[in-house]
Amino acid sequence: MVPQEILAEIEANRQRHVQELSEFLRFPSVSTDSSHAEDVRKTAAWVLTKLEKLGFRTRLYETEGHPVVYGHRFSNPALGTLLIYGHYDVQPPDPWDEWITPPFSPTIRDGFIYARGATDNKGQCLTYFQAMEAILAVRGELPVNVKVLVEGEEEIGSPNLGPFLAKHREELETDVIAISDGSQFASGMPAITYGLRGLCYLQVEVEGPRFDLHSGSFGGLVANPIQVLSQMLARLKNNEGTVAIPGFYDDVRTLEPSEREEMARLPLDEAALKRYLGVEQLVGEADYVSMERKTARPTLDVSGIWGGFSGEGAKTIIPARAGAKVSMRLVPDQRGATINESFRSFVHSLTPAGVRTKVSELHGSDPVLIDRDQEAMRVAAAAIEVGFEKSPVFIREGGSIPIVGMFKDTLGCNSILLLGWGSPDDGAHSPNERFSLDDFQRGIRSAAALMYGLAR
Amino acid sequence: MVPQEILAEIEANRQRHVQELSEFLRFPSVSTDSSHAEDVRKTAAWVLTKLEKLGFRTRLYETEGHPVVYGHRFSNPALGTLLIYGHYDVQPPDPWDEWITPPFSPTIRDGFIYARGATDNKGQCLTYFQAMEAILAVRGELPVNVKVLVEGEEEIGSPNLGPFLAKHREELETDVIAISDGSQFASGMPAITYGLRGLCYLQVEVEGPRFDLHSGSFGGLVANPIQVLSQMLARLKNNEGTVAIPGFYDDVRTLEPSEREEMARLPLDEAALKRYLGVEQLVGEADYVSMERKTARPTLDVSGIWGGFSGEGAKTIIPARAGAKVSMRLVPDQRGATINESFRSFVHSLTPAGVRTKVSELHGSDPVLIDRDQEAMRVAAAAIEVGFEKSPVFIREGGSIPIVGMFKDTLGCNSILLLGWGSPDDGAHSPNERFSLDDFQRGIRSAAALMYGLAR
Repeated sequence: MVPQEILAEIEANRQRHVQELSEFLRFPSVSTDSSHAEDVRKTAAWVLTKLEKLGFRTRLYETEGHPVVYGHRFSNPALGTLLIYGHYDVQPPDPWDEWITPPFSPTIRDGFIYARGATDNKGQCLTYFQAMEAILAVRGELPVNVKVLVEGEEEIGSPNLGPFLAKHREELETDVIAISDGSQFASGMPAITYGLRGLCYLQVEVEGPRFDLHSGSFGGLVANPIQVLSQMLARLKNNEGTVAIPGFYDDVRTLEPSEREEMARLPLDEAALKRYLGVEQLVGEADYVSMERKTARPTLDVSGIWGGFSGEGAKTIIPARAGAKVSMRLVPDQRGATINESFRSFVHSLTPAGVRTKVSELHGSDPVLIDRDQEAMRVAAAAIEVGFEKSPVFIREGGSIPIVGMFKDTLGCNSILLLGWGSPDDGAHSPNERFSLDDFQRGIRSAAALMYGLAR
Repeated sequence: MVPQEILAEIEANRQRHVQELSEFLRFPSVSTDSSHAEDVRKTAAWVLTKLEKLGFRTRLYETEGHPVVYGHRFSNPALGTLLIYGHYDVQPPDPWDEWITPPFSPTIRDGFIYARGATDNKGQCLTYFQAMEAILAVRGELPVNVKVLVEGEEEIGSPNLGPFLAKHREELETDVIAISDGSQFASGMPAITYGLRGLCYLQVEVEGPRFDLHSGSFGGLVANPIQVLSQMLARLKNNEGTVAIPGFYDDVRTLEPSEREEMARLPLDEAALKRYLGVEQLVGEADYVSMERKTARPTLDVSGIWGGFSGEGAKTIIPARAGAKVSMRLVPDQRGATINESFRSFVHSLTPAGVRTKVSELHGSDPVLIDRDQEAMRVAAAAIEVGFEKSPVFIREGGSIPIVGMFKDTLGCNSILLLGWGSPDDGAHSPNERFSLDDFQRGIRSAAALMYGLAR
């Protein structure tokens, strides 16, 4: 258990925590914008300095893009090790004119701090540093060995993180990894995410005649690539909304009844969701509730399609080619490589005479399921109870977070804690991004409790 | 029969005919390009002057676009009347750099005159004027009453022709209409076109969520507009290549066995066609030969499709909307209005929960079938035998020529002769458009023979 005096120390420094976050948020560390490259570097230096003040041995690792800040503070080889991951880069603030106060002039209103990066990820990342600061102020020593890795390219897809992890595998060896880059399930309902869907993103192209043909002169003679593509896409799903690719469900692990009950209990206001989305009906697999369908069941969606004439008015052609992008979300124990192969075979089996098809794999990651029945999970849940004064719910996310798979696969670590301190309506990636100062403080408390919990 | 001395007069003026055509072709009368508006007007004036020299009473009718040249020369109220239609405007010459000699500097090579408009339609239109010139030179009188209508907007879809015909219905009243704006079936194989397919061109739009959604966060919950659209488009055709819209074939007139035999005899080199199109197999209704499929059977083709993300790489979304353009070619006795309604009903019946669909009619024309068993057809065939020294084949065209329907419906004339003097490889609409000087001369002879034939 985290000593009460440390929680008291955290409470006593509440104002200073906010001032420090405000300082961190002033850097316009927009990783995707090369005109901000110098700002990004200054932000990395700020993080480095912060770690040094906490007695960390630090190093700024250069990559082909923005640098990685790394540091460690070893207490005792007999204790376990915690690796904390965060990122110091932020999304672009556009559209600027929708911000009530400027994105890089942090402003406090109604108990929230408003700025780009407030929740994603500067605020959440800083909680760990401030927890350590309080621990060190009271005890002079951390209860676990801590490694910190803060990258500057998360918002552009972490292109250099995989190679970095592979190169520094030994240096990064750890027992537990903590990542606070998501959110609670809902405001006031803290959560631990233990499942992430994987992704197969493919492109299908259908080629027919060498050039667009006059639909009058040639209509009735040749296979139409858009028609063929439509028939293929239609065949990818059954009428009940299941995916029709042979073997698609072969490796899907059956959901435990207990897990299904848990998901059914999670609040999901379908009426509000329909209003928000502007649809009259939610559509999906009949045998599963919405929460299962959006997080724990595999899906297939066409993300884009093109072919022929799409301008105004009429152009009477048979197009030479057409194409589509397909996004499939995978769940344990599906593997991207297997699904890609099944997709490819199915498309080829559906290719009729008179056209050629091409399938390209554009992007992908395997699904992740983190064992809930492990000590680190219990510790994290207890830490959240300390910080938020509520037990967390355990949830799966419908999206994919490729860095989690990288950590899991490259470092061989299965104790990855995905702990979101923010709220889903904090507006990550949107104008007027914010972070509740209460959640910020709760996060700091939870982070301190986590370190003590892991020390046992 | 056309008197031999008239054919001799035509032969004697061969050189002058070419010079006159060359003069006509020098005008860059590109109707779609407003910077050529003055050139278009000068071309109209040239045609007007030509008709005046032939003793026509002429008038330049202003429209909302380019003017219509009209003229008539009445010989004898007891004789029949022939209305000749042509157009003095041309397609843009782009791409310029593919022309061996400049498009508006007519050049003779190997028995062809090369220029934009050579075959489409200045050369073919001029044959009638030169035939009349020869007749008048020899006899001083035409054997029929002749009306001439030469418009300047054919290449931009004749937007003002319909209203013009409606307004001048009485003035344009006629027994027979001759249009030489197509080609022979193949070089050396003259043809009379008696059938044109109609067109229904519609747009289908499918709307789902209010905005593009993250396919991870929402995949499994909502209907995907591209997926829905694909399923609809797939359902529009059966596996055997027939159209699946209920009632689509109800009004299709059965092809006469004699007509089917005739079509089967028309030469169509499928191997050459496949090489030209770059496809390994021609695809269409199994029960019909290619010539029937491309001209006498109704078809459905998707001409364009769009939705979601079509850029490079991966964007994992469920799109808010998707759309497609559908081109259906109709045959007698299908009616566009009926087919549009069937299409609309079918799309609505296929609309699943969770999306909204919208169908818009963009363009259309009814199919045309001209009675082959009429005197004007026999006269035209005999005239072609005089001009080309070969009997014509009777063919249907797969495309639609909206002006033919306009003439038929507005003027109530069922004797429309579609007589192409040029060759399919003359390159109408392409660089290096040309017209064979022999075909030009054959056209003049045929036009003269036609007038004498109609005089009987």
